[in-house]
Amino acid sequence: MLPQEIRIILEEMRSERIRGASWLAMKGAEAYIALADLLEGEELENALREMKTEIPAVNRTMASLYNLSRFIPVTGNPEVVRAKAEEFIRLAEEARREIGNIGGELIDENEVVITHSFSSAVLEIFKAAGRKGKHFKVVLTESAPDYEGLALARELEKLGIPFEIITDAQLGLFAEKATLALVGADNVTRDGAVVNKAGTYLLALACHDNGVPFYAAAESFKLHPVMTSRDVELVERPYARQGHRIRNYLFDVTPWRYVRGVITEFGVLVPPKEI
Amino acid sequence: MLPQEIRIILEEMRSERIRGASWLAMKGAEAYIALADLLEGEELENALREMKTEIPAVNRTMASLYNLSRFIPVTGNPEVVRAKAEEFIRLAEEARREIGNIGGELIDENEVVITHSFSSAVLEIFKAAGRKGKHFKVVLTESAPDYEGLALARELEKLGIPFEIITDAQLGLFAEKATLALVGADNVTRDGAVVNKAGTYLLALACHDNGVPFYAAAESFKLHPVMTSRDVELVERPYARQGHRIRNYLFDVTPWRYVRGVITEFGVLVPPKEI
Repeated sequence: MLPQEIRIILEEMRSERIRGASWLAMKGAEAYIALADLLEGEELENALREMKTEIPAVNRTMASLYNLSRFIPVTGNPEVVRAKAEEFIRLAEEARREIGNIGGELIDENEVVITHSFSSAVLEIFKAAGRKGKHFKVVLTESAPDYEGLALARELEKLGIPFEIITDAQLGLFAEKATLALVGADNVTRDGAVVNKAGTYLLALACHDNGVPFYAAAESFKLHPVMTSRDVELVERPYARQGHRIRNYLFDVTPWRYVRGVITEFGVLVPPKEI
Repeated sequence: MLPQEIRIILEEMRSERIRGASWLAMKGAEAYIALADLLEGEELENALREMKTEIPAVNRTMASLYNLSRFIPVTGNPEVVRAKAEEFIRLAEEARREIGNIGGELIDENEVVITHSFSSAVLEIFKAAGRKGKHFKVVLTESAPDYEGLALARELEKLGIPFEIITDAQLGLFAEKATLALVGADNVTRDGAVVNKAGTYLLALACHDNGVPFYAAAESFKLHPVMTSRDVELVERPYARQGHRIRNYLFDVTPWRYVRGVITEFGVLVPPKEI
């Protein structure tokens, strides 16, 4: 049985509705650090064994959680656990910065970039392109039913980057007018499919139909070493509107043939993962 | 200047947010009948000339309004106006029934039919298939931001037809699991494109990608004799959410290459309008 403090963090991770794979991975790494503060020896080893199942089970779609649980060794030494968890956090931060640098180069002057939902990697690319002095416009979806697009809008507002917000159903209409599509990913499967907020697949299809290049941005810890697109278990969180139950799968799967490239901290994988 | 009574009806038509092309056409025909009750002779002729611009201008996307305004002759005789308006209504009702009969044949036992937004022609098909004793399931979108999908859900509930409601962003996910797609149309352009609620194009793309046949149902008065897909003026009704302005084009345009057929009262047009 994991200590109460850790179970609280896991519960917080499970109930998070807006933030994605990167946030979850950071929170998971913090859970390991908290564990290293609480336990040592055999107790720590047992807890780490439990974490190997508990952390990926928070959300099976998230490759970041799977990779985090593999990154931390099972040991009785709390110093090792703390050091590895801190290394994971540091590598993740470096990865995001580097994705910004690499992805920022993809944005040309006067680009119209369409995106869906909120990805911290995509935001990092927008920041880097802004720092490079590029002028571009972002078209973003409100991203129903949790409206995380509006959180992205607030960030862009702070950065002074012009944007327009659309309903999810207009992804096709506005893909036609865009020059580049950039989305995040919660998981890039072994066969190169991009698992991301439901609606991403529709954007990819519309981009394909209109010749707009479609890229996903993902730290390498989001590349899943085992899972294929057929194995993806999609998490669902139904909700009610006007007394009706609304189906609500959080993610969909975009096959690699619609993805121009996956922007990672090591470079752009084209086609995904076949470097 | 049109009489106050008529201007009120036109205003009601302009401000209607949920109901589509069929409802607007019926309401427009009622406006003509009201006009015939109020005016005659030269006054009626002048008003009818004004209606030729006013009725299509209510919503330029709607072929039904364009065709209605051409259906009613400019005359001083109120009896002629009333008779033609009533004929339009009768033909429209017959057309919808016949579309139900023809379209109902397309639904096989255990079909999973995906649709988007609320179309009275599609509802008629569901009713007819139900009367024929067929068992099938409907997957429908809530259709943000006005949620007209929930109005369809209430109709299906009354009819005892099983259904599931999804968010618009899940159209891709659920198209994969569907066996047939049926949508309405506010306009079928001269080059066969289907103008319908924004998001329809995304559904068509997802159906194409998954080999699911995609049909539109439209009374013949929704076939536009002049407008091509390039001429479509898309009506926009932006709204605010959390202090942000949200772009909101009501319609998008699905090119004929993604449309298996258009179900009209005369039969199924395959490819659209090339009979």
